[in-house]
Amino acid sequence: MLPSFAGRRCLVTGGLGFIGSNVALTLAAAGADVTVVDALVPTHGGDRRNLDGAEGPIAVIEADVGDAGAVRDAAAEAEIVFNLAGQVSHVDSMARPRFDLEVNAASQLGFLEILRELGSEAVVVYTSTRQIFGHPRYLPVDEEHPVSPVDVNGISKWAAEQLHLLYAELYGIRGSSVRLTNVYGPRQRLRDDLQGFLPIFVRRALAGEPITVFGDGAQERDCLYVDDVVECLLLTARSAEAPGEVFNVGNDEHLSLRTIADAIVTAAGSGSVESVPWPHDRDAIDIGSYFGDSSKAKRLLGWEPRTSFDEGIAKTIEFYRSNLSRYL
Amino acid sequence: MLPSFAGRRCLVTGGLGFIGSNVALTLAAAGADVTVVDALVPTHGGDRRNLDGAEGPIAVIEADVGDAGAVRDAAAEAEIVFNLAGQVSHVDSMARPRFDLEVNAASQLGFLEILRELGSEAVVVYTSTRQIFGHPRYLPVDEEHPVSPVDVNGISKWAAEQLHLLYAELYGIRGSSVRLTNVYGPRQRLRDDLQGFLPIFVRRALAGEPITVFGDGAQERDCLYVDDVVECLLLTARSAEAPGEVFNVGNDEHLSLRTIADAIVTAAGSGSVESVPWPHDRDAIDIGSYFGDSSKAKRLLGWEPRTSFDEGIAKTIEFYRSNLSRYL
Repeated sequence: MLPSFAGRRCLVTGGLGFIGSNVALTLAAAGADVTVVDALVPTHGGDRRNLDGAEGPIAVIEADVGDAGAVRDAAAEAEIVFNLAGQVSHVDSMARPRFDLEVNAASQLGFLEILRELGSEAVVVYTSTRQIFGHPRYLPVDEEHPVSPVDVNGISKWAAEQLHLLYAELYGIRGSSVRLTNVYGPRQRLRDDLQGFLPIFVRRALAGEPITVFGDGAQERDCLYVDDVVECLLLTARSAEAPGEVFNVGNDEHLSLRTIADAIVTAAGSGSVESVPWPHDRDAIDIGSYFGDSSKAKRLLGWEPRTSFDEGIAKTIEFYRSNLSRYL
Repeated sequence: MLPSFAGRRCLVTGGLGFIGSNVALTLAAAGADVTVVDALVPTHGGDRRNLDGAEGPIAVIEADVGDAGAVRDAAAEAEIVFNLAGQVSHVDSMARPRFDLEVNAASQLGFLEILRELGSEAVVVYTSTRQIFGHPRYLPVDEEHPVSPVDVNGISKWAAEQLHLLYAELYGIRGSSVRLTNVYGPRQRLRDDLQGFLPIFVRRALAGEPITVFGDGAQERDCLYVDDVVECLLLTARSAEAPGEVFNVGNDEHLSLRTIADAIVTAAGSGSVESVPWPHDRDAIDIGSYFGDSSKAKRLLGWEPRTSFDEGIAKTIEFYRSNLSRYL
């Protein structure tokens, strides 16, 4: 699949962040013409060093995706947009809800308006989140599952996803939405507790500290290694059937939080796991077990994850051992 | 029911607009302590003259609901909030999408943040819209129906509704959402084509002009006379079961657009009805037939509409005959 991206003009928003930088590096290695837009919001995951070692040139625009003056020329050139810019911290979305709505919904609408005004027919792959579903009513969660977010992030992201589908329906961009579950791997911000449980667990294990598991840790999750996510996003961009569609993208490997924590400690060879009662502020936004039904992505995109958790976490630990200072 | 509102401190946002002013006038007549907040956005439905003839004092704050400096004191006093402020024009939401998201989602989030910072435990009745459902997958549309907006307004309003439910879940406001279908009656902006088909039909009939029905006009709608909506909102505010809930509020009287147009012409004694092919820009956001299932509102709130369309439209025509210059 990768050779088909050679020479294609690709725009990666949030391209200095965790998943975005992995997408940009993969595209550059494939010979694509890559431009990255990233606002480098201090609390988000963007870092210019995430593009270190790129196997091809990557242009970087430091701007909010909704900033027409900064983004318009690159948007006009783009054949394919991987639209990953956003605020991903559920906890932060509750502490600064206005900012979350601004970044995740208003800026995204601004970006779509730029594309509309340009008459763009670009392929636009937007990354949404399982957080839009809230407490699962059934498992695994498929695309028909009712949407019922339990945090501001889920509401903002759902609004942006729906705006993409609406603009695809009305204005000719070839937009789709990929709803990601818990993603881990190289180039994820580890330095604070804002990006979800996986980077917290990895940081603590590497630091030789105890990983805190709330309650009995029996809630199950499906985790995705970032290379599998990158492959899914590229397959979505290539698919003639993807525009107008949403995809729940998860993993048939379901692991309890306790199992995940133990596997990370084993892979790191350091750290430990301890159970504590649920803190009140997390309890309110916890969703119990979650895992997604990716059969639509398998059927339409030919995608399925290829990396077991043990394999992915080993690669992840290896990466951070060599680059830890950059991510702390 | 009305006497129970005597002396209660009520805040009505959008209270100079169509439904809001009818709520404020009803509350004032019941002896409530009424304050209205309205931004008087020129293209929206607000007009100070909508409160003419009030049977009690109504304080007016001219401000955006998210403007903490202007709204905080009134919000701190409020026991009950009827939260009707917003941009209701589906057409305008497509012409000015950023403004729609700003007014309908960001300002509403700002208002909820004001309540949260105050530690408010007010009853907050938010008015949402059937527009969040888009093309019905089945009829009548109940609360379990998937949400799939076909315009920016539907996305913004859904976000605000979900924010109300989230803040009710987490922060102690007693919030609920009433999803209204097509509302008509006195004090609705008639002067342009921004507020939906009913005021357009009424204006044209009163002006002796032809009412334009797209296609064969066979799509059905459930219309609500504004007095029935006011009653529903007051019953929601009184109900101990309403907080945290959403209600689809419609009418079991389903009428085709053609029938509605004919009834308006008959009531007005002027105008005519003509069929034209679907214009392209409307076609894109048309949803076919729509009617809601109000059985949850009947069960939990004891509400059902009491005004037939013929009766309601007769009262409506009578009101505008006496006040037409104000609304054109």
